[in-house]
Amino acid sequence: MESKRLAGEKAVDFVEEGMVLGLGTGSTVYFTLVRLAERVKQGLNIKGVPTSIETERIARHLGIPLVNSGEAGKIDVAIDGADAIDSHFTLIKGGGGALLREKMIALAADRFIVVADPGKFVTDLTHVNLPVEIIPFARELTEIHVKGLGCTTRLRMKDNKPFITDNGNFILDCSFSEIIEPNDLQMKLNRIPGVVENGLFAGLADQIITVDHSGKAAVLET
Amino acid sequence: MESKRLAGEKAVDFVEEGMVLGLGTGSTVYFTLVRLAERVKQGLNIKGVPTSIETERIARHLGIPLVNSGEAGKIDVAIDGADAIDSHFTLIKGGGGALLREKMIALAADRFIVVADPGKFVTDLTHVNLPVEIIPFARELTEIHVKGLGCTTRLRMKDNKPFITDNGNFILDCSFSEIIEPNDLQMKLNRIPGVVENGLFAGLADQIITVDHSGKAAVLET
Repeated sequence: MESKRLAGEKAVDFVEEGMVLGLGTGSTVYFTLVRLAERVKQGLNIKGVPTSIETERIARHLGIPLVNSGEAGKIDVAIDGADAIDSHFTLIKGGGGALLREKMIALAADRFIVVADPGKFVTDLTHVNLPVEIIPFARELTEIHVKGLGCTTRLRMKDNKPFITDNGNFILDCSFSEIIEPNDLQMKLNRIPGVVENGLFAGLADQIITVDHSGKAAVLET
Repeated sequence: MESKRLAGEKAVDFVEEGMVLGLGTGSTVYFTLVRLAERVKQGLNIKGVPTSIETERIARHLGIPLVNSGEAGKIDVAIDGADAIDSHFTLIKGGGGALLREKMIALAADRFIVVADPGKFVTDLTHVNLPVEIIPFARELTEIHVKGLGCTTRLRMKDNKPFITDNGNFILDCSFSEIIEPNDLQMKLNRIPGVVENGLFAGLADQIITVDHSGKAAVLET
């Protein structure tokens, strides 16, 4: 938890007066939001675009001014967590179920900062499941095509019912035995009708903030 | 209307006892449904998987037995209309807003039969708008990326509000000045986070049923 707090808070050092910020989702970004709210109380003028209903609720509660992406016009910096990060700084995201909105905001932002405790760094992206957001209609057909790419799939459940994303869709958690070419895999996944988006973030992260061996926040430039 | 009726009805000639049928959406398929219902009344045993809430309603009203895609297991033949068909039998669909479910069913079917009056044949797919289904969240961001592929876009409206698809999404009607490589365009569209699916159907049609100069139904094999 201390690593998450250090990494999450450090990201706020890169926030400047007047910025529009993409606000990610999850337990590490939570500390970014808390620190950001402190600076807002001290007079910092920023606006946030939340990537999930959960983050919108927390940010509102903390007093962070929010706009929707249409009002924002542009996003200067997006700050978000990750479930796994490999040596090429390719990420897997979507454990929290907000991958689609997170990817839209990350892509739109001039700078995408990832906050992650050291446990998120993996030698191989197959160490975590790849979340894939799918349309509820005819999900069995979509699942057949996804499995055809070489994985086993599990429909994410919550309270004995399919988990529903903020966009009204389902999540397939996909276990691949290998992910050699993330961009190729992304293309193949996104070509399947019924697949809305996938949790691979390749070539998007500009900075990764984590904690080094001495227990201090460390900023990695990609 | 007579052409639509002739083409729509002719498709039922390819329906055999025991088949599972994908049932498309629109004014030509309507005549397929009416003819199919007649044969069901005469004792034909089939099951239909509807591609839209509208088709589900009509089919139910006509007494066509329905199953969902999960129960169906497989789809023998899908029958659907098109907004435009070029000389390579690439289609544009989605004028009715059901493109995503239609594409899922067309892809799943062993045989995909397109029913279309002669007015749907075009020398150039740019003659009609290309419908693109997008997530409502941050649609301005999605629109920027779609425009970046070389089109103008218009959010489809209904009763002064954005048109909502059966999947809860919006439709961008996109006017391209040229569509040279449909598969390449599809890949670029589907890679945009926020784009759920597009109305290009390339390499999917197995048969196209239309009406020839003499006013008779004609079957084109692709």
